Amino acid sequence: MATLLAGKPVVERLARNLAPRVERLKAADIVPTLAIVRMGERPDDLSYERTAMKRAESLGIAVRSVALDEFTPQSVVEAAMHDITHDAGVHGCLLFRPLPSFVSESRVCELLVPEKDIDGITLASLGSVFTDGRTGFPPCTAAACIEILDHYSVPLVGKHVVVVGRSLVVGKPVSMMLLRRNASVTICHSRTEHLEEICREADIVICATGRARAFDAEFFSPGQTVLDVGINFDTHGRLCGDVDFDKVEPLVGAITPVPGGIGTVTTSMTMAHTVEAAERAQAERSE
Amino acid sequence: MATLLAGKPVVERLARNLAPRVERLKAADIVPTLAIVRMGERPDDLSYERTAMKRAESLGIAVRSVALDEFTPQSVVEAAMHDITHDAGVHGCLLFRPLPSFVSESRVCELLVPEKDIDGITLASLGSVFTDGRTGFPPCTAAACIEILDHYSVPLVGKHVVVVGRSLVVGKPVSMMLLRRNASVTICHSRTEHLEEICREADIVICATGRARAFDAEFFSPGQTVLDVGINFDTHGRLCGDVDFDKVEPLVGAITPVPGGIGTVTTSMTMAHTVEAAERAQAERSE
Repeated sequence: MATLLAGKPVVERLARNLAPRVERLKAADIVPTLAIVRMGERPDDLSYERTAMKRAESLGIAVRSVALDEFTPQSVVEAAMHDITHDAGVHGCLLFRPLPSFVSESRVCELLVPEKDIDGITLASLGSVFTDGRTGFPPCTAAACIEILDHYSVPLVGKHVVVVGRSLVVGKPVSMMLLRRNASVTICHSRTEHLEEICREADIVICATGRARAFDAEFFSPGQTVLDVGINFDTHGRLCGDVDFDKVEPLVGAITPVPGGIGTVTTSMTMAHTVEAAERAQAERSE
Repeated sequence: MATLLAGKPVVERLARNLAPRVERLKAADIVPTLAIVRMGERPDDLSYERTAMKRAESLGIAVRSVALDEFTPQSVVEAAMHDITHDAGVHGCLLFRPLPSFVSESRVCELLVPEKDIDGITLASLGSVFTDGRTGFPPCTAAACIEILDHYSVPLVGKHVVVVGRSLVVGKPVSMMLLRRNASVTICHSRTEHLEEICREADIVICATGRARAFDAEFFSPGQTVLDVGINFDTHGRLCGDVDFDKVEPLVGAITPVPGGIGTVTTSMTMAHTVEAAERAQAERSE
C-alpha cells in the first residue's frame, strides 16, 4: 500500500497561508483579482473555470470572466489581453489553451505583461524558469508538482527524478524547478528508448504525457514516489491519470491520485500566484 | 581504442560552409563583424581572443576589439554595450565573462540586442533555447557540442544523454538542444547521488564541470560517446579536460580530446553565428 499524496491537505494548507495575506491586501483596499480568458465553451475549460471560481470565492479572490466566442478574431482576442495588461485592478490572468488554430497563441500570450502572468505563458516567465530568474511565474501545474512534493517532505536534493513529457506547461518547467532544488533530472518523451527501465531507476517519477493509464507496473519499482499529472478520460468516459493507478499503487512508495491530486493543487497555485502578483504590485507601487 | 572526435575536421567543414556565405555578404558590401568585449587582461581571455581573431581573419570576418580596463565602472561598460547594439556595422558580440564582481553582469548583458547575441548571453536567447524559439543564438559551447555530435553522425533520437553540469553556458542549454533533437536527457551536477552509475548507463556523456580530470574510468562503460567540455589546467600547469583521457579513452567508443575538441569547434561556432547574424540583418533590411 502506497502513501496517498492527496491534494486536499495541500489545498487546505495553502488556503491557511493565503487567508491572512488576502486580509492584509483588503485592508489596503486591494482585492486580488484574477482574469480568466476563455474562447468558446470546451467542457473541460468550463469545468475548470467553475472550480477556479469556487476556489477563488472561498479565498476572497475576485474573478473576472472574459468569455469570448469561439470564432472571435485575432484582433479582438489581442484587445482583451491588452485590456488585462493595462487594467490596474487585475493582478493575474489565466488563459485557457490551446486557442483555436486561426488565432496566433504566441502573439496573444506576449501581450500579457509578465507581472500578471501567473501561469507561465509568456517567454519572460519561461525564460525566468530556465535561468532561475524572478520575472513572472512558473506554470501552475509545474508549481503544483513542487508544492505537493514539499508538502509531503519528499527529499529532492541529490535524488533522481524522471520527468516523462517535455511540454512548456509541465515537463520542461518542472524539470528546471527540480534542478534548482538540487535534484538530478531526466527528461523523457515519446521518442525515448527503454522508457520503462529509465523510469524504474528513478527515486521520483513524474508522468505528464496525457495518455490515459499508459504507465503500468512495468514502469515502476518499490519505494518510488509517483506524481500523476495526467487528466484524461478512458474509453468508458471515466476520469483517469497517465498512471494505471490500480496496478501501480500496490507497488510504489507514494502516489498522487487522479482526481484529487496534482489537478486540485494546480487550482490553488493559480490562486497563490494571483495573491503574490497582487502583493508584488502593491510593493511596486509603494516603492 | 576509442574513435577520436577531433575538432579539426569540424572546423574545416564549417569553414567550407562559411566561405561562400561570407563572399555573398561581401558582394552586398557587408563585412560580417564581431565585437569582442574584454575587461582586464586575464590570460585565458587574451588567449581566446588571439585564437578568435586568427580564425575570424582566415574566414574574412572582421573583429572589433573593445578592451576595457579591469576597473572600468558599470556606466562605461554599459555604454560600450549600448554602442555595439546601436552600431549597424557590428553583427555579433562576444563578451568575456565573468565580469569583475563590482559590475552587474546581467545589466550589461541585457543591453545587447538579441539579434547580435551570438553567444546566448541575453535572457531572450536563453528563453528561446528553452522554448524552441528563434530569437538570438544559443551559447557557442553548447552549439559546439551539437555540431561535433552531428559531424560524427552520433545518433541522438531516442538515445540517453547524461549532461554533468547545469550552467547557462553549457549544461542547461545543451540539454534543451538535445531534447529538441529527440534525445532523452539527464542533467546532473555537484549534488547528484550515484553519479558514476548514472553516467555509466548513458549512450552519450557530456562532462561540463570545470574540474580537472574529475571523470575517471569509473564513470564510463564500453561503447559510450564522451564529450569533454572542460578546459582546465592540472597541478603541473598542463591543459586538460574534465575527463581523465588516458584512463577513459581505452574504454569508451568515442571521445573528444582536450585541447583540439569542443574548444576549437566553439571558436568556429562564434564565427558561424556572426555570419548568420549578418545574414539575418541583411534579410531584415531587404524585407
